[in-house]
Amino acid sequence: MAKKAKSARPKARLPKGLRDVGADEFRAVEGMVGAIGRVSEKYGFEPLETPAFEYSDALGKFLPDADRPNAGVFSLEDDDGQWMSLRYDLTAPLARYVAANYDALTKPFRRYQTGVVWRNEKPGPGRYREFRQFDADTVGTASVAADAELCMLASEALETIGIDTGNYIIRVNNRKLLDAVLQQAGIDPQDEAEQIKRLTVLRAIDKLERLGPQAVELLLGPGRKDASGDVTKGAGLEAKQIDLIMGFVGAGSDGRTKTLAALAPLVEQNEAGREGLQELAQMDELLSAAGFDATRVVIDPAIVRGLDYYTGPVFEAELTFESVGEDGADRQFGSVGGGGRYDGLVERFKGVKVPATGYSFGLSRLYAALSELGRADVGSLVGPVIVLVMDRDHIGTYQRFAMDLRQAGLRSEMYLGESGMRAQMKYADKRGAPCVVIQGEEERSRGEVTIKDLVEGTRLSGEIEDNTEWREGGRAQIAVPEAKLVEAVREVLARQQT
Amino acid sequence: MAKKAKSARPKARLPKGLRDVGADEFRAVEGMVGAIGRVSEKYGFEPLETPAFEYSDALGKFLPDADRPNAGVFSLEDDDGQWMSLRYDLTAPLARYVAANYDALTKPFRRYQTGVVWRNEKPGPGRYREFRQFDADTVGTASVAADAELCMLASEALETIGIDTGNYIIRVNNRKLLDAVLQQAGIDPQDEAEQIKRLTVLRAIDKLERLGPQAVELLLGPGRKDASGDVTKGAGLEAKQIDLIMGFVGAGSDGRTKTLAALAPLVEQNEAGREGLQELAQMDELLSAAGFDATRVVIDPAIVRGLDYYTGPVFEAELTFESVGEDGADRQFGSVGGGGRYDGLVERFKGVKVPATGYSFGLSRLYAALSELGRADVGSLVGPVIVLVMDRDHIGTYQRFAMDLRQAGLRSEMYLGESGMRAQMKYADKRGAPCVVIQGEEERSRGEVTIKDLVEGTRLSGEIEDNTEWREGGRAQIAVPEAKLVEAVREVLARQQT
Repeated sequence: MAKKAKSARPKARLPKGLRDVGADEFRAVEGMVGAIGRVSEKYGFEPLETPAFEYSDALGKFLPDADRPNAGVFSLEDDDGQWMSLRYDLTAPLARYVAANYDALTKPFRRYQTGVVWRNEKPGPGRYREFRQFDADTVGTASVAADAELCMLASEALETIGIDTGNYIIRVNNRKLLDAVLQQAGIDPQDEAEQIKRLTVLRAIDKLERLGPQAVELLLGPGRKDASGDVTKGAGLEAKQIDLIMGFVGAGSDGRTKTLAALAPLVEQNEAGREGLQELAQMDELLSAAGFDATRVVIDPAIVRGLDYYTGPVFEAELTFESVGEDGADRQFGSVGGGGRYDGLVERFKGVKVPATGYSFGLSRLYAALSELGRADVGSLVGPVIVLVMDRDHIGTYQRFAMDLRQAGLRSEMYLGESGMRAQMKYADKRGAPCVVIQGEEERSRGEVTIKDLVEGTRLSGEIEDNTEWREGGRAQIAVPEAKLVEAVREVLARQQT
Repeated sequence: MAKKAKSARPKARLPKGLRDVGADEFRAVEGMVGAIGRVSEKYGFEPLETPAFEYSDALGKFLPDADRPNAGVFSLEDDDGQWMSLRYDLTAPLARYVAANYDALTKPFRRYQTGVVWRNEKPGPGRYREFRQFDADTVGTASVAADAELCMLASEALETIGIDTGNYIIRVNNRKLLDAVLQQAGIDPQDEAEQIKRLTVLRAIDKLERLGPQAVELLLGPGRKDASGDVTKGAGLEAKQIDLIMGFVGAGSDGRTKTLAALAPLVEQNEAGREGLQELAQMDELLSAAGFDATRVVIDPAIVRGLDYYTGPVFEAELTFESVGEDGADRQFGSVGGGGRYDGLVERFKGVKVPATGYSFGLSRLYAALSELGRADVGSLVGPVIVLVMDRDHIGTYQRFAMDLRQAGLRSEMYLGESGMRAQMKYADKRGAPCVVIQGEEERSRGEVTIKDLVEGTRLSGEIEDNTEWREGGRAQIAVPEAKLVEAVREVLARQQT
């Protein structure tokens, strides 16, 4: 087989759901990650990095909608036969890290992490099998002050990267309220046998924003056939149960206090409900004290978050400006991240409760959002100043020009290809070069260099036809003594900024 | 099995050869990557990101010392039965990228990339199965100006991150010279049947620095038994052949011109040798023109680089300062990266020659080097200012204090745990907090906050015993009106800087 592979040419292609990320997106995402990282550090979090894959049993299986074993993750076998999986989020590795280093850690342990995660799921438009996340988590405290703080962090992070108040909203709920409503509806959330029904109900609620209330009612009841004819099995609830749940998820209001007052009568009959209400009230108090009012953080009883491991407050950051959907219709941009409290994840390893809460941003979604807002290009690179190679015998001189410019902090390169003048100019154009540096025989004899302003040049003429025309370009080019090269290039760049 | 996994507790551990990276190393590496990225951009390179894994046949197999198929890489099977592998370097993905996007790319194509790579090899001390690299490559030109520029980039990158001239050296060689010497010794480098002998010779030379000339002579000849009793098979050359090769690899000299002059008579009899010499001479000219003399870049005929795909100039960055090895003995720090020309990698896909050259830094090695030089901690975070929670009924006020400090750009957090005063002070100490903010009943009644300087406090007392003692701490703590909190904390921080 090795022989055959050697003779046959491999095809240059990527597996489905994987993609390359070009310079603009890379730099924009780096900029976002840097900014969100600095905000996280300001909030007291410390960075941590964990490996891309770990033992499969250590990562566990908490992906939504993944009923088959091993569905959703990429797994590989180690030499000794043990199975390892690529991380599908940054929370499972954190739980492993905390459990492995529990005694040495200062608690509450507050860490942020950014990295790529992998999901072995069906890719679709804008939906990849590899994507980058940014997480912040606080481990080792049951206080919802930690949850409130993550909502503040999420809010400040979004504003720092250019998504202003009004263009986003952080929605907060509490799984305890959802459990209370389920109990009111006669579904015991603790009962093992009821787990599938409970999950079906939570998933149905999770689809409220996307599909609307009628579809959710069907998903809570007999099930639903979508436009393509696919049938989703329902939770099989009765009308009375459905009414109760729909009444709850629809009870949100503009103010946090008003929402809490509307929810209270629906859930305060049982203990989980009272606990959940009290936790949300405390979060409301802390958010208000820190200056985060309902224009930034609201309470929304319809927020579920897909992941199975949440046990208390859950939150979601949603972008609220209009954008054009794949079908050409206006739509809301939707979720760019979220999180919640997961008091059981570290317990899996330790056997004792280690309360924790975390927040996760999807960076590709955030980049898409910034692009829609026209703010993704702030990090775009200006092309390099290209030193043309007019005469290969003097390549050392051209190299020195490029290095002089670099030493002055200017982005620059000597043309490294082997083509002639016209191709070199085309290269400079394609690279977005602000100007080129030219020294032909004539300039050399005078100890000069010519700087050709490509921005001004394009404006003046359009197409450059030949050498003579260049030299007569007037304003678009200037000749200066070699020693004035850096200064003259600086002037050209400055003129282009104005 | 799913049932069983649920009941048994997983063990919190990592597979061999994988590790977590803590805050200090993470920040230091981020700082390095940022700095090297900016230097690369200044040199005209653009960032690119490719996925962590690709089709195995697209990545190919070019690892050194990996004779078994699939040895060295981690592979996983896609749903449709196709094999994919985690990238083992950043060059193979680049070749796939260039081949897949060839017509759309502006050539020469100059990209930098940083990312984690994986090698399924036996881990050892300081040798992991996951590590991070930084690469810069120029694709689409045969001009050794591109190779010379990569040596300049490597040199400037090292100096930018704090490794000064004299603490490192870039060593350059040319595979064509090595081929010429092999030919002189009667081994045809083009002959398929001689490939194993050729590789054995190259690997032997590659070990010159580590094992010394005597060991290399054995590896070129009958083979060698090391201290542990392991036997490495030799290339089986005769004494005359060995002399020829040892004469060549030992012909290096201080100056580049002198080295070239010493090498010329050994290789100029054949065409590869003449080409190789001429290429090195041109690199020397360009390096000199750009101001990179032999204190930064030398020519060294013993440089091989392990990877199989190099076809022309090869380079290696070596740190030259003394450090203490694992055995406690002084040693040179050694290689932190390298690269070379690989004119055949894109050809694998395209069937036409696409000349290319690249440079790669090992970032973990660089971090270790900076640590040895005492320069790795420049990015260390100062601990956050901790707002103590003296009275849970006033948690909103404490939260506001923390937020006021953050809004002033100061790193701060309210204590999020549920422990008492002493534990909170211990937490602040462990987090490296510069100071804590305290408001008990007394301060509140006066509308004041107390700021306790932990740096000064530690200096003055050592151990804090009780509340009363704090309040009498004198210089180590000050009480100010609430409105002066930010200002007063700023003053404490400023005093600590001096």
